Amino acid sequence: MRRDEDSRKRDDVVVVGAGFSGLHAAARLADRGFAVTLIEARERVGGRAELHRFPNGDTVDVGGQWIGPGHDRMYRLVSDLGARSYPLYHAGARLLKLGNRARRYRGLIPPASPWALITLELALRRFEHMAASLDPEAPWQHPKAPVWDRMTVAEWMRRHLRSRTARRLFTIGIGAVFATAPEEISLLHALFYARAADGFRGLLEVEGGAQQDRVFGGIADLAERYAARCRRMGVRLLLGAPVTTIVHDHGGVRVRMDTGEIPARRAILALPPNQLRRIRFDPPVPARRDRLWQRMPAGRAIKCIAQYARPFWREKGLSGEAVGGRGPVHVTFDNTEEGARAGLLMGFVIGPEADRLSAVPAAERRAAVLESFAEFFGPAARDAIAYVDKDWGAEEWTRGCYAGLMGPGTWTAYGPELRAPIGPLHFAGTETARRWYGYFEGALEAAERAADEVTCTLKG
Amino acid sequence: MRRDEDSRKRDDVVVVGAGFSGLHAAARLADRGFAVTLIEARERVGGRAELHRFPNGDTVDVGGQWIGPGHDRMYRLVSDLGARSYPLYHAGARLLKLGNRARRYRGLIPPASPWALITLELALRRFEHMAASLDPEAPWQHPKAPVWDRMTVAEWMRRHLRSRTARRLFTIGIGAVFATAPEEISLLHALFYARAADGFRGLLEVEGGAQQDRVFGGIADLAERYAARCRRMGVRLLLGAPVTTIVHDHGGVRVRMDTGEIPARRAILALPPNQLRRIRFDPPVPARRDRLWQRMPAGRAIKCIAQYARPFWREKGLSGEAVGGRGPVHVTFDNTEEGARAGLLMGFVIGPEADRLSAVPAAERRAAVLESFAEFFGPAARDAIAYVDKDWGAEEWTRGCYAGLMGPGTWTAYGPELRAPIGPLHFAGTETARRWYGYFEGALEAAERAADEVTCTLKG
Repeated sequence: MRRDEDSRKRDDVVVVGAGFSGLHAAARLADRGFAVTLIEARERVGGRAELHRFPNGDTVDVGGQWIGPGHDRMYRLVSDLGARSYPLYHAGARLLKLGNRARRYRGLIPPASPWALITLELALRRFEHMAASLDPEAPWQHPKAPVWDRMTVAEWMRRHLRSRTARRLFTIGIGAVFATAPEEISLLHALFYARAADGFRGLLEVEGGAQQDRVFGGIADLAERYAARCRRMGVRLLLGAPVTTIVHDHGGVRVRMDTGEIPARRAILALPPNQLRRIRFDPPVPARRDRLWQRMPAGRAIKCIAQYARPFWREKGLSGEAVGGRGPVHVTFDNTEEGARAGLLMGFVIGPEADRLSAVPAAERRAAVLESFAEFFGPAARDAIAYVDKDWGAEEWTRGCYAGLMGPGTWTAYGPELRAPIGPLHFAGTETARRWYGYFEGALEAAERAADEVTCTLKG
Repeated sequence: MRRDEDSRKRDDVVVVGAGFSGLHAAARLADRGFAVTLIEARERVGGRAELHRFPNGDTVDVGGQWIGPGHDRMYRLVSDLGARSYPLYHAGARLLKLGNRARRYRGLIPPASPWALITLELALRRFEHMAASLDPEAPWQHPKAPVWDRMTVAEWMRRHLRSRTARRLFTIGIGAVFATAPEEISLLHALFYARAADGFRGLLEVEGGAQQDRVFGGIADLAERYAARCRRMGVRLLLGAPVTTIVHDHGGVRVRMDTGEIPARRAILALPPNQLRRIRFDPPVPARRDRLWQRMPAGRAIKCIAQYARPFWREKGLSGEAVGGRGPVHVTFDNTEEGARAGLLMGFVIGPEADRLSAVPAAERRAAVLESFAEFFGPAARDAIAYVDKDWGAEEWTRGCYAGLMGPGTWTAYGPELRAPIGPLHFAGTETARRWYGYFEGALEAAERAADEVTCTLKG
């Protein structure tokens, strides 16, 4: 089915959005011999993966960066593209700062009161138990789905976490995993998300968890490699080409940009829901679909990275992981790339604190973040040699991270709308994943499903 | 400042959106001598007001339709434009159907158990008391705002409405007022909304409440009259012209449509938040603004109207008002226009039931709605001579009604973003109103504020 560039009058498939999901869908379809065009609004591929280069030449992912156990597609991709992964540094003690003093600990049990720990443990077990009972393909079908979807995570916490410390730790955990405050998400969404990732605890962990490994040279560089491979496979890649309108009917699609129009038999839209709403569809999508997209705002996190002459915390026997504190950063990691001399500390500013800090001058934000780092790691943390942060809410073609969130009522009202094709329009992107929703792994899983749907209808 | 049509190189103000807010802003600015262009995506003005004509020639508003005490600007507009208002028919008994039988009642006290009534009364008082303590200009500044904004109305109801019947009635009330389920809105949003309307009870009432009066010939016709007046005042009105991009800087704006570009010194955007997100801004709006807009999905209601040879329920001494039932309609009104021979019953399908019915064939929806009417008013309600319904979620340029809703956390994080200008961009529309948010009255209030902001900066 592949045709020469010049002779192609109509593609088989247009894929919109060149994040990992769009790249993977394009590659899969090209591999099967389809003529594919991949369109991207930005001048780069990678979506929510992006590389920053410090003045000394070191690089860091300012977007998503982690892979861990269960991310089989991602590990395979790393290997296929000739890249390699390496474990996040986490030797040494962790820090927990609940009051005035940061306390060291090792292993999984933080130095909090027994009452807080027991409450937290029981709540986590209850949460995991509920999550495990869901079908990640259709969480809305669970007998208790209406009850769980009528309540926010915050309400559930008020009921089941009677210890203030336990609530605080759980809030930090929810923030780190969802990039928002517990009152913004439905309990059912949180349970589904945990289920889609084989459990909630793993989402909080480094070794054996979702923060285990990174990609050497940056996961954003992996996206570049993937784009190069797509091109070699015959995929036509258009950058800097925001899609404005998609005309669709049983015969196919016409995907319009300011610069022209691409006709194709099918389209795969590999975009977050908040970006789908920016495209004009002709005819318009059904009411329910738009209602769903209106109800999936993206999370709100600013990823902040400070560079130091050396990873000084390691000399004190610290892993770089810290939790708690006065804020605006409540979670940190050692983000130093393997083999680099300079050390990197990374922290997230999340939810309402991200809202506040996104509106202040960059220097003020930097000072606030370094002060947070200093609170955990001492005054040396103020002496960063470089600093970068990234507010994905300010990115016109993303508008938030890590992923789309569902408030109460959304899953049960619109769950079946999430992935269903609309005529020749198919949907990918991590927000349509059944496994690892919100992760790069989910982006690939969704891409495979969408590409298979398209294959089926084109061959059928 | 007014210039001739031919010579106008640059407008003073472009107003985007020709609902009541846009019309009112345009008129106010034209009246002050500014050169104004009003742009509308649809081929008609009126926004969420739209007229339907039955086969026999009778008309009915399939969008918003009511005005009531406190809507001073709307009553003035009705009079100024040579229209007239008339009271909704509500003589006779109301119906309440909680179990198998619809029970008649008069006055304000429905025939429910004393326990349910007392619970409901205490909860309403508590709700009204909290609402009254808010400043409608800045509800996020209330000392308890963080607490009230962390909880949904559903959670508040679970705490304070211990009677199941009371919860059911309150849920119907919330549905009728907000066009959604109680779990989708923050308690703070509901309190603000009530405060902005001088109390919650009035929002549920006909006489003396927000459903008191209608506009003869349709409120949508009033919008047409207003458009005609705007034209006579020199406003250039462009219909069928969706705005795709707004380029803005300190010097002014360039408002782009598929058909061309209009330069102006200022723009007023009189659109619901979910529609603002469909416009590309160059430069993009700040992160916080977009986050706010992502978090204001529109409510979900289908307005359903059945026409009968005569208003047969009146002959049985019924007012046409009914509450309860098996659904999908839980609230009805007599919507017969003054002087019409044929009778109209109107009902709302709301929230999850609207989601379900918006996806079924029109005939099935009609049958379900007539069955609901019959449940209250007897088998004669099945013999409609005509029927119309309107799902505003399916309207490409509205995408939901009655108005944008805020879930937990939105008001406290983004309240100040709601109305603040961005350079030369000013914001109107009922979702930016300080009084009567969600009503036509709020649309006018917001328009006056935005027009005054613009006047101030252009004259300053």
